[in-house]
Amino acid sequence: MKFTEILEKLACDIKEYKVFGDPDVFQVASLEEATQGSITYVESLRYGHLLETTAASAVILPPDQFLQEKATGSGLAWLTTDNPRLLFAQTIRLFYKSFRPDSGIHPSAVIAQDAQLGANVSVGAHVVINSNVKIGNDVCIHPNVVIYPGVILGDRTILHANCTLHERTIIGSDCVIHSGAVIGAEGFGFVPTKDGWYKIEQSGFAILEDGVEVGCNSTIDRPAVGETRIKSQTKIDNLVHIAHGCTVGSGCAFAAQVGLAGGVEIGDRVILAGQVGVANQVKIGKGAIVSAQSGIHSDVEPGEVMSGSPAVPNKLYLKVSAIYKRLPQMYQAFKQSAK
Amino acid sequence: MKFTEILEKLACDIKEYKVFGDPDVFQVASLEEATQGSITYVESLRYGHLLETTAASAVILPPDQFLQEKATGSGLAWLTTDNPRLLFAQTIRLFYKSFRPDSGIHPSAVIAQDAQLGANVSVGAHVVINSNVKIGNDVCIHPNVVIYPGVILGDRTILHANCTLHERTIIGSDCVIHSGAVIGAEGFGFVPTKDGWYKIEQSGFAILEDGVEVGCNSTIDRPAVGETRIKSQTKIDNLVHIAHGCTVGSGCAFAAQVGLAGGVEIGDRVILAGQVGVANQVKIGKGAIVSAQSGIHSDVEPGEVMSGSPAVPNKLYLKVSAIYKRLPQMYQAFKQSAK
Amino acid sequence: MKFTEILEKLACDIKEYKVFGDPDVFQVASLEEATQGSITYVESLRYGHLLETTAASAVILPPDQFLQEKATGSGLAWLTTDNPRLLFAQTIRLFYKSFRPDSGIHPSAVIAQDAQLGANVSVGAHVVINSNVKIGNDVCIHPNVVIYPGVILGDRTILHANCTLHERTIIGSDCVIHSGAVIGAEGFGFVPTKDGWYKIEQSGFAILEDGVEVGCNSTIDRPAVGETRIKSQTKIDNLVHIAHGCTVGSGCAFAAQVGLAGGVEIGDRVILAGQVGVANQVKIGKGAIVSAQSGIHSDVEPGEVMSGSPAVPNKLYLKVSAIYKRLPQMYQAFKQSAK
Repeated sequence: MKFTEILEKLACDIKEYKVFGDPDVFQVASLEEATQGSITYVESLRYGHLLETTAASAVILPPDQFLQEKATGSGLAWLTTDNPRLLFAQTIRLFYKSFRPDSGIHPSAVIAQDAQLGANVSVGAHVVINSNVKIGNDVCIHPNVVIYPGVILGDRTILHANCTLHERTIIGSDCVIHSGAVIGAEGFGFVPTKDGWYKIEQSGFAILEDGVEVGCNSTIDRPAVGETRIKSQTKIDNLVHIAHGCTVGSGCAFAAQVGLAGGVEIGDRVILAGQVGVANQVKIGKGAIVSAQSGIHSDVEPGEVMSGSPAVPNKLYLKVSAIYKRLPQMYQAFKQSAK
Repeated sequence: MKFTEILEKLACDIKEYKVFGDPDVFQVASLEEATQGSITYVESLRYGHLLETTAASAVILPPDQFLQEKATGSGLAWLTTDNPRLLFAQTIRLFYKSFRPDSGIHPSAVIAQDAQLGANVSVGAHVVINSNVKIGNDVCIHPNVVIYPGVILGDRTILHANCTLHERTIIGSDCVIHSGAVIGAEGFGFVPTKDGWYKIEQSGFAILEDGVEVGCNSTIDRPAVGETRIKSQTKIDNLVHIAHGCTVGSGCAFAAQVGLAGGVEIGDRVILAGQVGVANQVKIGKGAIVSAQSGIHSDVEPGEVMSGSPAVPNKLYLKVSAIYKRLPQMYQAFKQSAK
Repeated sequence: MKFTEILEKLACDIKEYKVFGDPDVFQVASLEEATQGSITYVESLRYGHLLETTAASAVILPPDQFLQEKATGSGLAWLTTDNPRLLFAQTIRLFYKSFRPDSGIHPSAVIAQDAQLGANVSVGAHVVINSNVKIGNDVCIHPNVVIYPGVILGDRTILHANCTLHERTIIGSDCVIHSGAVIGAEGFGFVPTKDGWYKIEQSGFAILEDGVEVGCNSTIDRPAVGETRIKSQTKIDNLVHIAHGCTVGSGCAFAAQVGLAGGVEIGDRVILAGQVGVANQVKIGKGAIVSAQSGIHSDVEPGEVMSGSPAVPNKLYLKVSAIYKRLPQMYQAFKQSAK
């Protein structure tokens, strides 16, 4: 594809551009790995020096004179936009489309007679769809997925291979459930009695609203009563655990290996970094950010940035972490003064 | 179902009750989400005020005069019991039964000729049962489960969809293995040599005694020699890792994302909260409790409550955590005095 | 097998030995669990006293006079070697061979017409192999594995039941992918925009070089551009997450529940203990060791030993952890002096 063709296809977001001989571009690459024929991007001045050495043919820049001059100096075709990373993501789609099987039902799939399937559905080999399942239009179910009775799936949702949807699961439109994820399994509920653990049957629902994405091998449980709900457009990475009865707001992002205990309530647009844990019944206000490996044991106000285990406001955490390394000195002084 | 019918069915545990017009009850719900026709429960005075506003028709209470009066004042039918949560769990079973496929063997299942199946077994679509597997009576195997050769399964055990049982696995009666769990896979054993890692074949057994429950995508490995053993009635949540050669006592509960390294020994009725890690060969005494995200690096006495990473007794942990936030002040004082 | 037969089969590594009546040996066992007919091993003097009470018939020892005398005194046949654990691992292979299905393709497997399979391949029941997949010789694919289009698998690689290989995955020779692992799924990449998260298509590759082992339910994602690469002979335990764009060196070992964020670079022979987390773009030098539950937020020099979250050099960590317990005392002194 000629650079000018790319410009045309992405036209709406481009501010300025410069063409040097209209190079052929046939792949996307990072600045460091780019070879001839690659289009790449630079997000900030920090990486500007790499423009001198990159072998790329074209580059997406922010509207920055210095970077433009660097790119011009290196003979790169360039364009500018306010969000280079976004435009790069759009450019990837010009060169790559992830695998999507044709619509149709593989003969080895086992589908209950009363299951309802929409138009243009793809059902892969060895898929099992139980009784009373309702599947929207343009849904894509990869091989070896199992769907328990009564599950509802919205339009255009994608289920990757080997994932499992349990009874009492409702999934909206435009969701992606990645391989090995398990949605709507029984919450971990037992009452201690003098005769041991008494199992609480989990009669509630697991509900994923439109545009939710759940990573590989993540688990979202259904509760004893009521619902576990993930609101629209929330994105969840791999190996995350969301326990029975949690409510997660819209537009959140949870990194890998996050764990929410039972009944947690999380507002909209909350970011939880990797391996964060949140204790039972805790509430996290909208827009809060929690750093990696933090442990949240009490409610977090909207917009707060929290770190550490137990978590404290990030500013305090940074101070304390710096002091942490000086504890041996402080302890020496303490011992001296205690004499 | 009339409230009085519920009373009859649960009769054994009820202390006292009051009927207001014998309401129709057709669902279970939490106190906050209850609507007309719901039965709900209150565990303690803390939630008593919600009795004024709930739309529920009936409520399970502890034997507390104040709560009884509140419920009466709100026109709710009520009953009292020493363990409202337990009676609520019993009530859920009057209204909900989790999905259980009919017994019978799906024609797409692939079962070795010498595998032995008990009476009333259900084997779902695309299940694979290898050579020399022995399966008890009333076992339920959901679709796409794979069982390696020689595995033994006790009566009434349930295997949810997409789980895998490896060779040298023995599972007792009344166990539940949730979706995606992997039992009896090779422990992580390699000897460092000058030519790299030398793989230790894992010839031992993974043994789950009666009534053990293993959560979604959890993994319990078999060891090089000897056994990994989970004793009766222990309940394990999702995404938990139990390494080769561990012994876990009876009646334990492990929350999600707990990890045990090799050869850990855990006594009876130990509680490990979410994301706890336990180092190689460590012993934890019976009845101990470990808080979320703690790291256990040395032996824990029976009945201890431990917190933090590295873990210390919980009382010390609470003190230290409180001081943690004051470290910046202490450090200022230290710097002043050092002048 | 007679003890002398074992000696013959292992001859190359043995330094010295003593035969007492050439006992029959028919199993391997740990020192504590050994019964008559067992061969076991002792690695160090620490376990020497157990030689007095073990019921084993034979024992592998390091070249240590004291241990040899103990073993002789207990009437055990023994042999010595510089690396008893390695020789024990070799001995296990004389008595145990893990399950390997016969070569051949199960009729229920669904294999694209243009997929290329090498010689002596075993493809289990309900396996799905998509278009354009290339599989080497002597590969073993257990039941219910799903392979997306275009995946390449080297010779002798083993895929355990229920694992999933996504498009743009390349796996070398002599690799083992354990049950439930997911390789090459879409990295967690979204650009925040005023209209919410914009999904970045993941067009890069996930590459596992020769001899890599990936544990049960672990996940290794492919990146937007470029590659995620695990170099040769690296061993990864269960429930580990490796994000898009990471590079992991040769001969590393990652314990269970480790998580690497995007773009992490790890040198050769690095050891990460259980539940370690590594932040975005961090570099860890070759030969470094990171203790369990540590959080790595900045680059680590080659050969360093790091501990804690945030991680500090292990020596400092040990000092600080010791002081940690004395913070209440220090705080009292601080409060006194502040008066």
